[in-house]
Amino acid sequence: MATDTATVTGQKSSPDAETLGRRLGHSHVKVKREAGLQPLEPIHIKRKYRHVAAVHSENLTSCLSHDSKEAPSFLGFRNLMVIVLIVGNLRLMIENFKKYGVLICIRCHNYRTQDLTLGALLYFIIPCHLLLAYLVELLAAQQARASIKGSKKRDGTATPGGSYVPTTGELKKFQATWRMIAWIHGINATLCLCITSFIVYFYIQHPLIGTLSEVHAIIVWLKTASYAFTNRDLRHAYLHPSKRLEDAVPEIYEKCSYPENITLSNLTYFWWAPTLVYQPVYPRTTNIRWLFVFKRLAEVFGLSAFMWICSAQYAVPVLMNSIETLSSLDLTMILERLMKLSTISLVIWLAGFFALFQSFLNALAEVMKFGDREFYTEWWNSPSVGVYWRTWNKPVYQFMKRHVFSPLVGRGWSSYDAGIAVFFLSAILHELLVGIPTHNIIGVAFIGMMAQIPLVAITAPLEKMNGINGRIIGNCIFWVSFTLIGQPLAALLYFFAWQAKYGSQSTKT
Amino acid sequence: MATDTATVTGQKSSPDAETLGRRLGHSHVKVKREAGLQPLEPIHIKRKYRHVAAVHSENLTSCLSHDSKEAPSFLGFRNLMVIVLIVGNLRLMIENFKKYGVLICIRCHNYRTQDLTLGALLYFIIPCHLLLAYLVELLAAQQARASIKGSKKRDGTATPGGSYVPTTGELKKFQATWRMIAWIHGINATLCLCITSFIVYFYIQHPLIGTLSEVHAIIVWLKTASYAFTNRDLRHAYLHPSKRLEDAVPEIYEKCSYPENITLSNLTYFWWAPTLVYQPVYPRTTNIRWLFVFKRLAEVFGLSAFMWICSAQYAVPVLMNSIETLSSLDLTMILERLMKLSTISLVIWLAGFFALFQSFLNALAEVMKFGDREFYTEWWNSPSVGVYWRTWNKPVYQFMKRHVFSPLVGRGWSSYDAGIAVFFLSAILHELLVGIPTHNIIGVAFIGMMAQIPLVAITAPLEKMNGINGRIIGNCIFWVSFTLIGQPLAALLYFFAWQAKYGSQSTKT
Repeated sequence: MATDTATVTGQKSSPDAETLGRRLGHSHVKVKREAGLQPLEPIHIKRKYRHVAAVHSENLTSCLSHDSKEAPSFLGFRNLMVIVLIVGNLRLMIENFKKYGVLICIRCHNYRTQDLTLGALLYFIIPCHLLLAYLVELLAAQQARASIKGSKKRDGTATPGGSYVPTTGELKKFQATWRMIAWIHGINATLCLCITSFIVYFYIQHPLIGTLSEVHAIIVWLKTASYAFTNRDLRHAYLHPSKRLEDAVPEIYEKCSYPENITLSNLTYFWWAPTLVYQPVYPRTTNIRWLFVFKRLAEVFGLSAFMWICSAQYAVPVLMNSIETLSSLDLTMILERLMKLSTISLVIWLAGFFALFQSFLNALAEVMKFGDREFYTEWWNSPSVGVYWRTWNKPVYQFMKRHVFSPLVGRGWSSYDAGIAVFFLSAILHELLVGIPTHNIIGVAFIGMMAQIPLVAITAPLEKMNGINGRIIGNCIFWVSFTLIGQPLAALLYFFAWQAKYGSQSTKT
Repeated sequence: MATDTATVTGQKSSPDAETLGRRLGHSHVKVKREAGLQPLEPIHIKRKYRHVAAVHSENLTSCLSHDSKEAPSFLGFRNLMVIVLIVGNLRLMIENFKKYGVLICIRCHNYRTQDLTLGALLYFIIPCHLLLAYLVELLAAQQARASIKGSKKRDGTATPGGSYVPTTGELKKFQATWRMIAWIHGINATLCLCITSFIVYFYIQHPLIGTLSEVHAIIVWLKTASYAFTNRDLRHAYLHPSKRLEDAVPEIYEKCSYPENITLSNLTYFWWAPTLVYQPVYPRTTNIRWLFVFKRLAEVFGLSAFMWICSAQYAVPVLMNSIETLSSLDLTMILERLMKLSTISLVIWLAGFFALFQSFLNALAEVMKFGDREFYTEWWNSPSVGVYWRTWNKPVYQFMKRHVFSPLVGRGWSSYDAGIAVFFLSAILHELLVGIPTHNIIGVAFIGMMAQIPLVAITAPLEKMNGINGRIIGNCIFWVSFTLIGQPLAALLYFFAWQAKYGSQSTKT
């Protein structure tokens, strides 16, 4: 038998050697048999006795026993999981089709012309606030130039970059100007946000148009803030240069140092660049790969269609027949609804993430020749909730870190308090983002974001744990808290509020 | 910012070094940030300008882009899959409970006393055929001893193990005796199988008792065959020894060479040993770990209860309300039913596999001090259907290889034909195993086994393909064909036939 095997597994050694191997009970032959035996191959050796082969020639353990030396591989079960997931959801799709038929219909969408016109109007108004911010900075820059000239006259040695201690009078003056500039910027930016929110909340009924306008306004608000803060520091460094290395302005800015960076083209680039953080200079690519852009935009289009179909055919029915469950307050059934909702909301969320952060932002970056494409890192492996929030949305994370967290720490806040401040600001923005377009400021998004603070604190130790288990547990906590409880629950509650307010007048949106 | 990071990630180098790193835009700092940044840790360096940090200091790619150097890890998505699977099935359990309540009840089982008595009777009758086989071999062994003595008298040189060419007369005599012995063994073994099948089919109504009796009969049938074939070859080697190495009897047998092995104790050991292949000597362990035995038996008990609950609470309802679907011949709905059934049948099958091949056989082997515990290898990773059939059930595989496949190849059959013969025999046994206790010999099990031959042929090339993809495809084909189509379909059809024959008189069994 061992001889058969040896030959069968393609080993071409002489019968004697093999038989010897058999007689000595060499285990490598057995190993070979496991490796992949082909009974459909010819057996070369003529042997007289084929019923006597010693099948059981040595002590062996079952590979699932604790006695066995090496742990078995379970790769096949990973494949099985994927198959079972696909099959299980195919079944649910059949069930859904039998129950509801096709719910997707394009004509069913009733965009009010008012919504469209107002949306278009906002699309052109919002960026104007960036322009205003530019004008403010332009004045500030000119004033700075003037004061430098003045100080030059007064003291020849003081050149930008030269060691120079500003007089208290000058510092006061700077602070006063800054306070004024800060006020103008603040009013300008906040006005932008308030106007948009007001119009969306009271005059734009369609949640999609509303959401797009609101997102746009928030982005411009953040960009304006970054533009103002960055130029403030640059101006200060320009007026009162210091020799301390850690006060130096980053090398890469020297290509376009203050106040040369205060130009319309520089602002326009920042306006369109896929970042919320203003820099006079960004790492750039040399050329635009139009095929790359086209592919990414095709992805955006395809995924949008996919998400629309998913929500119309699968999410909406579940949401609809979850409403009575929610009002019945039967906890097990609400849990059942949440579980049912979680899968589809997860799918839609993942598609949305990929469409926005991978496809759209990469396309935009390619067109803008923007070099830093790291809009996210491997957040799906997050060993803790904190790592997730630091990795899934880099543009916002970078803004918060540079303009909120780091400055607060600089002012002597404990980094824990600074972290809370970041989540608080983020919570407000989330509530605006969801509450305004759905015309229901019920504070669920706000609470959801604030609830991240304890989650971050709880899971932080797990990522530092030795061994893989801590990281796996942390990862599972993140997934469950976020995609299986947080998201569907929030969706359900806002939908519930929406229905309570508008009844069934727009279920297909 | 990079300075913050460097410090934040626990790097304790001097500010200057860090700032230098920042000014040179060292990417290792960024890499550290990705590794696991802790904004909740204090930042040590007092810096003047925190709004100017160069967040975008170098060209980077999104980790999901093709441009990125190293492929991202998707370990987190594996965890997500497990969570989604658990959640999805928890939801179905809630649904099932709301729909049916608790279906598990012990009193509902109606074991007819006739079934129990007949089952007990068969349990004691079946092994008697092994005893009969022993008596036959005992006679044959005595006769062999006598003829050796005779030949010794006639020719002093001819000692067992010495080179010796038997006369044609002697060979004829051996063949004649063997033919007679073979007939007796054949009649004896087949009688065992026929009597059991007859009683089970006509007088034992309970499918569980019937299945157990049938399995017992088939095992004894196989063991008897192995006992007869092995001793035939051993006797031949004993009577007509040859010097050719490849005709030698395995080393391990020399501890108890023919005809010393024809004893009642030796047979009894083979009767209880967890193997279907007779060897005069087996690899043995030195002692019995009773704790090990107890744990394994506890597993058997627990898993049996688990399987019973699964089938009563989840499988039976699906089977019941699949019947009208099956009779309606609506293909999509039949597919939907199969998909629904596949998950639960898969779970039950996996539990059954573990209970029998890991827990029970290991417990038995431990009690018998049986050394070779390799009752299966990593079949779940099978890159082809062929590998699955060679690895999931070693005892049967080893029997088929040693007593059917290898001898047929020895007689000059192509290994392809020999393979078909193996699957044909296996198909018959499967049909007996399922058809007899369910009182429906509808040939589904037979066809199912025969259908493996083309599947083996189709997937054989995949396991030889370079790269992992071929193996993954093969593995998926195996899983789909076996656990998602083959098994649930067979279960459904036999249940359908059962219901057609007995109506709803025993749905809980």
